[in-house]
Amino acid sequence: MTIREEQVLERISRARNRKARLREDAITLAHGSGGKATHTLIEAVFREAFGNPLLDRLDDSARFTVNGADLAFTTDSYVVSPLFFPGGDIGDLAVNGTVNDLAVSGAIPLHLSAGFILEEGFPVADLRRITESMQRAADAAGVDIVTGDTKVVERGKADGCYINTAGVGVVQSPPTGEVRPGDAVLVTGPIGEHGVTIMLARGELDIEADLVSDTAPLNCLLADLMCSCPGAVRRMRDATRGGVATVLNELAADAGAAVVVEEDAIPVRPAVRGACELLGIDPMYVACEGRAVVVVAPEASEAALASLRSHPLGAESAVIGRVKDDPPGTVLLKTAFGGTRIVDLLVGDPLPRIC
Amino acid sequence: MTIREEQVLERISRARNRKARLREDAITLAHGSGGKATHTLIEAVFREAFGNPLLDRLDDSARFTVNGADLAFTTDSYVVSPLFFPGGDIGDLAVNGTVNDLAVSGAIPLHLSAGFILEEGFPVADLRRITESMQRAADAAGVDIVTGDTKVVERGKADGCYINTAGVGVVQSPPTGEVRPGDAVLVTGPIGEHGVTIMLARGELDIEADLVSDTAPLNCLLADLMCSCPGAVRRMRDATRGGVATVLNELAADAGAAVVVEEDAIPVRPAVRGACELLGIDPMYVACEGRAVVVVAPEASEAALASLRSHPLGAESAVIGRVKDDPPGTVLLKTAFGGTRIVDLLVGDPLPRIC
Repeated sequence: MTIREEQVLERISRARNRKARLREDAITLAHGSGGKATHTLIEAVFREAFGNPLLDRLDDSARFTVNGADLAFTTDSYVVSPLFFPGGDIGDLAVNGTVNDLAVSGAIPLHLSAGFILEEGFPVADLRRITESMQRAADAAGVDIVTGDTKVVERGKADGCYINTAGVGVVQSPPTGEVRPGDAVLVTGPIGEHGVTIMLARGELDIEADLVSDTAPLNCLLADLMCSCPGAVRRMRDATRGGVATVLNELAADAGAAVVVEEDAIPVRPAVRGACELLGIDPMYVACEGRAVVVVAPEASEAALASLRSHPLGAESAVIGRVKDDPPGTVLLKTAFGGTRIVDLLVGDPLPRIC
Repeated sequence: MTIREEQVLERISRARNRKARLREDAITLAHGSGGKATHTLIEAVFREAFGNPLLDRLDDSARFTVNGADLAFTTDSYVVSPLFFPGGDIGDLAVNGTVNDLAVSGAIPLHLSAGFILEEGFPVADLRRITESMQRAADAAGVDIVTGDTKVVERGKADGCYINTAGVGVVQSPPTGEVRPGDAVLVTGPIGEHGVTIMLARGELDIEADLVSDTAPLNCLLADLMCSCPGAVRRMRDATRGGVATVLNELAADAGAAVVVEEDAIPVRPAVRGACELLGIDPMYVACEGRAVVVVAPEASEAALASLRSHPLGAESAVIGRVKDDPPGTVLLKTAFGGTRIVDLLVGDPLPRIC
């Protein structure tokens, strides 16, 4: 890296460490993107109001003990549009998403809640299709939907159906949490399929592609990984809103380290790459709903890769990069042409309402 | 009761025991009311898809054990309109509602999740006001908001702000669950204040009334009750959507018994009674958000009343009726004029989007 590059990176790093300040007076779609605007909203409004040690970790799940039981607890609302898409629907997405948030915390998902907000006039047949899909996803993940709620709002006050799921899991073998220079960074399969599938399903683009959403429960895949590499798994994150780029940035920021990834090593299907080129977006920022980013100790990288690849949902796993000391809090991409570029957090998301 | 009355009641009882069948092809506002239409939707769609022993109890919370810890888990979405009203807002409502669902299960509420669905353009100042109100409610109830999520939908695809909260609590001294003939039925304060307050806040009626919502956390009130009457508390329910009448019907149906209440004994403030008369609705069906219906063993009724009244949130508690053998599954109201009438479940709710 040249001195000039180092100066630029230092300035970026300083800018990032400033206290979050929300400049907007009104909520924009970018606040729901999972990117910079979402981070600012969380810092300036939610952490400001709710701040407590469990929330402040901002992990995928909150962890606490109750009478000696080590629990993980998480929630997500789903507003995906359209509700039905190749490879899935809002129902299995809502189950898999919460299962995965528990799984990446090293928890065995046990019980889910389901809260429905339905628009007056929503077809009962669609609701049945969604609930059946949720149950199939729950069966696949080995969880039960044990409590729920339904609200109905007037025509025009929702978009058919919104679902919130919360989940409780028991933590058995959590990742160590500490990411260190030298650690290997893996991804559990090709990236961006969910986001591109949703975009194509909206029909706004005249692209035909043989793509389906990657929505899937990762709990067995990741539990197997934890068993295969005892004590060597540092962090796991599912790459949803904001894609792999956002997860890598969060990991780099938390660790105060750099994450350097090799463009050539990142699995991207040709159909995703082609659609992204036409859309003018980078697959690194496109949401997955069945892929995790995993950081493991240097010596465990081969064992981790073998464990992930032995599972159908991780068959195309790859080591995509390494953790380095410098520049702290930064993600660098070594391009196929030998250059290096910064992969920053985006302010918003090129694809709103992806989950 | 005359023979004719008995025949009528028997016919009603038979009709109620039929398998739920959803006649509508599309969701209506009545499906979100908490009344008969909601019950049918739950039976015909949600239990049909998700049926499992924990869900099938259809309690306010699901109960399960994890590594020996006895837990309660519940969820509710909030779509109240308007978002701000005398005595509260969607924020404290969302915290108190979930705290109360845990409390009536005999659980100590511990941790809450918060999922926000925001409409593009929603004022950040309103969001701050809501989150601050949530935190004050969480402090009052002794719970933490430990995990959350935010989604944003386009203008016109929501109504400002919807909130889902889920909650985890630890069960210490649950109600016995078995309601028996002779048991006393109590309510912890005047009924219908929340619903009427919301109705008036909509400004559709030109009524001025000095009313505020009863939204409040009932966990301390009910935990004190459990301590004061060990082993004698049968059931506790918070009387939200559908009001006290709906809760009494559910208790009667679960117990296969009759609940006979005295109209004169039910606390209703004059302003609520007056507004209900003008609106042509019965306060028995109007939502409360800080009142519980409690069933206790006959010999414990005085101790229960004393315990509830010693707490500020239960100062106006009253014994409103008794559980009887016949007619099973029915709620009867002894009117102030010496008559008896059936208090049935309504199909829908006279006041939609009350919580």
